[in-house]
Amino acid sequence: MAQKPSIPKGTRDFGQIEMARRNYIFDTIKEVFSLYGFQQIETPAMENIGTLMGKYGEEGDKLLFRIQNSGEKASLAPEKGLRYDLTVPFARYVVQHREELSFPFKRFQIQPVWRADRPQKGRYREFYQCDVDVIGSDSLIGELELIQIVEEVYRRLGINVCLHINNRKILAGIAEVIGAPNKIIDITVAIDKLDKIGVEAVNAELLERGLSNEAINALQPILNLSGTTAEKLSALRGILANSTTGLKGVEEMEEVFSLISSSDVHLNIELDLCLARGLNYYTGAIFEVKALNVQMGSITGGGRYDNLTGIFGLPGVSGVGISFGADRIYDVLTELDLYPKALLSSTQILFATFGQEELHYALRWVKELRAQGIAVEVYPEPTKMKKQMGYADSKQIPFVAIVGSDEMAQEKVMLKNMSTGEQNLVDMSQLIEVLKS
Amino acid sequence: MAQKPSIPKGTRDFGQIEMARRNYIFDTIKEVFSLYGFQQIETPAMENIGTLMGKYGEEGDKLLFRIQNSGEKASLAPEKGLRYDLTVPFARYVVQHREELSFPFKRFQIQPVWRADRPQKGRYREFYQCDVDVIGSDSLIGELELIQIVEEVYRRLGINVCLHINNRKILAGIAEVIGAPNKIIDITVAIDKLDKIGVEAVNAELLERGLSNEAINALQPILNLSGTTAEKLSALRGILANSTTGLKGVEEMEEVFSLISSSDVHLNIELDLCLARGLNYYTGAIFEVKALNVQMGSITGGGRYDNLTGIFGLPGVSGVGISFGADRIYDVLTELDLYPKALLSSTQILFATFGQEELHYALRWVKELRAQGIAVEVYPEPTKMKKQMGYADSKQIPFVAIVGSDEMAQEKVMLKNMSTGEQNLVDMSQLIEVLKS
Repeated sequence: MAQKPSIPKGTRDFGQIEMARRNYIFDTIKEVFSLYGFQQIETPAMENIGTLMGKYGEEGDKLLFRIQNSGEKASLAPEKGLRYDLTVPFARYVVQHREELSFPFKRFQIQPVWRADRPQKGRYREFYQCDVDVIGSDSLIGELELIQIVEEVYRRLGINVCLHINNRKILAGIAEVIGAPNKIIDITVAIDKLDKIGVEAVNAELLERGLSNEAINALQPILNLSGTTAEKLSALRGILANSTTGLKGVEEMEEVFSLISSSDVHLNIELDLCLARGLNYYTGAIFEVKALNVQMGSITGGGRYDNLTGIFGLPGVSGVGISFGADRIYDVLTELDLYPKALLSSTQILFATFGQEELHYALRWVKELRAQGIAVEVYPEPTKMKKQMGYADSKQIPFVAIVGSDEMAQEKVMLKNMSTGEQNLVDMSQLIEVLKS
Repeated sequence: MAQKPSIPKGTRDFGQIEMARRNYIFDTIKEVFSLYGFQQIETPAMENIGTLMGKYGEEGDKLLFRIQNSGEKASLAPEKGLRYDLTVPFARYVVQHREELSFPFKRFQIQPVWRADRPQKGRYREFYQCDVDVIGSDSLIGELELIQIVEEVYRRLGINVCLHINNRKILAGIAEVIGAPNKIIDITVAIDKLDKIGVEAVNAELLERGLSNEAINALQPILNLSGTTAEKLSALRGILANSTTGLKGVEEMEEVFSLISSSDVHLNIELDLCLARGLNYYTGAIFEVKALNVQMGSITGGGRYDNLTGIFGLPGVSGVGISFGADRIYDVLTELDLYPKALLSSTQILFATFGQEELHYALRWVKELRAQGIAVEVYPEPTKMKKQMGYADSKQIPFVAIVGSDEMAQEKVMLKNMSTGEQNLVDMSQLIEVLKS
């Protein structure tokens, strides 16, 4: 036997069980998206390299998978690259098709993306993203609806979550009022670690990153903000009194929370001033969702952007979107054992037979059951009964109809319940009744 | 404004309408596959280049999309290529995972494939394949079930089709008995054109391809075979009397037709001795499905293979499979106007409002309707009514709920039927009744 074949590192095969679970996640998410009027689009796996380059920072450029040109251009610089995320292709799509679209444009997109990252546990070179965005409106109802979608998706999946929310304008305002308007990134990177390393260490890091002692002192009351959301926002109003941007951020958050409370949202939502999110196209609300009761990074994240399509020549189109992390949701559901039972067993009954004649007899039954919408298999050969039963077991098929000459003579089958072991001789209408109940 | 962005030639964006139609096709096919106990798998977009090379002939090797290696290996020969079809990855999958699988293994797979073909009408560089196979059994019930699947899929889609069936063993037998056992490919390529160019031209081509006059003469009675399937098979029994392989092929066809007739299949099925199919891994039955009433090549095709996994070191595993051509099925449904109405309008009702207060009022209604499982949108700003109505039109949303101060005062909304123009003042329970009916 030759060496076993394999697949490229960082990629995965999905077998039937994984696919059943993944489809369960995607179907749940898609159903909720549809309730809110979002519609699906797809873009090609390959984009022109110019569409991708320079959009993900220097590091991102290095991680793009490039496609070798074909024919005589093979030795020239690649003209195409694989999709690195769904956001840039979405921006490209909106600009390219802007005349055909009606705005606000509500789309979702579920497709794989590829990154030449070093593979490690939980990090793959091919993985699915699941993005939902509304673009062409700056109404904060966009934020509200995405929050409601998060609530409903995780309610249906049975995962308890907390949604952390912040606003880029508030972060910009904070940097402004402490006298370090160009240090937003340093500030957010440092305070992002507050939970893990504590205030002292954060302050040390801020100093190292070039913030003045004065600025760090000015930041302290903000790091220590506590109380209810209303209290935090009210305190921020005072702190950010001299920053127009900051006050705009506070206002936006006040309106989002007002929409949330008047819409009877039951999600845990926390105004988290330490939430920053790395991507630099965000300009308003930013979100991250974490699963409770399990060690796992953010499983959903996103935010508002005011100029995503500007990179492709269409400036000033505001939108808001979030992305569900399918692989992490998969892991959370696995760890908490939250998948519905019987997800795999699409087949409800297997016909097992003792001989050729029985097999032909079974085919007629099988046809009738399928006409009733029941998923049925017939073991294709009248081989050893143990083997046929083993097949039913391996596919978690809940019932087996055993057909021998006795059953044929009576126009019946022996119905075996695979979980209880119980056996009953049944006719067609009894069988349909059992399988439909 | 910068130049409009674009996508690589031969690739496509799928907008909401295309996606709704494509999902309709895929969902229909998947539902039927499930009735027969086939389960979904997925394989990575990238395979090791060694997995792909040499599997599709010289021409195929040229059409593989290769991925440039990353980092310091960038200048070396590519180690990975994009999936060219679903058959080779399936064979690789079966061999790689053989210990985890239970046989017969019934899988389906719906994923894009990539070919560096010259793009032209109906031929793309990225397109979806939709394959269903059962491997690990040589029972002809495999053939029967695939034929039943073809029948049911096209019945559900409303497309009238004819399934052409032949057998590679019969073709091999014919080549044998006319004294040209090494000329099977030449013979099949030539007789494949019988319909188009007629017997004379076919014979001329056979001569050109190196067949002796004797062989060509011997072939004539076979080309002229007519009558019922039973008559054709009976004539072939005589013609192929000296070919063990040929007789085996006839026997297989007889059994398949016997299974078909005892299973009450209503599909048009034609034993077509001119059907050859190019792929050289087929060893038994071969199929092609053509849509009636429309000019279009084969929309589904496949066959039995006895050694697909042999290329990866696991010989002697028989299987049978077919592939549905999603792009062509899409075109047939479009040409014959067979898509269900209201495929796009996932959203059932849009709320259009005259002011901020009305918008907040609408949000409560929207929430209640979604809780009832109804897909609802609210126009996110109380802008001009014409614009809000235009949005509903563009998304083919069948109802609009108009909210002004009068409606709010009465705890009602003005329900407008967008196709009839009819308007009625309704309360929540009346609205739910209309939308659920």
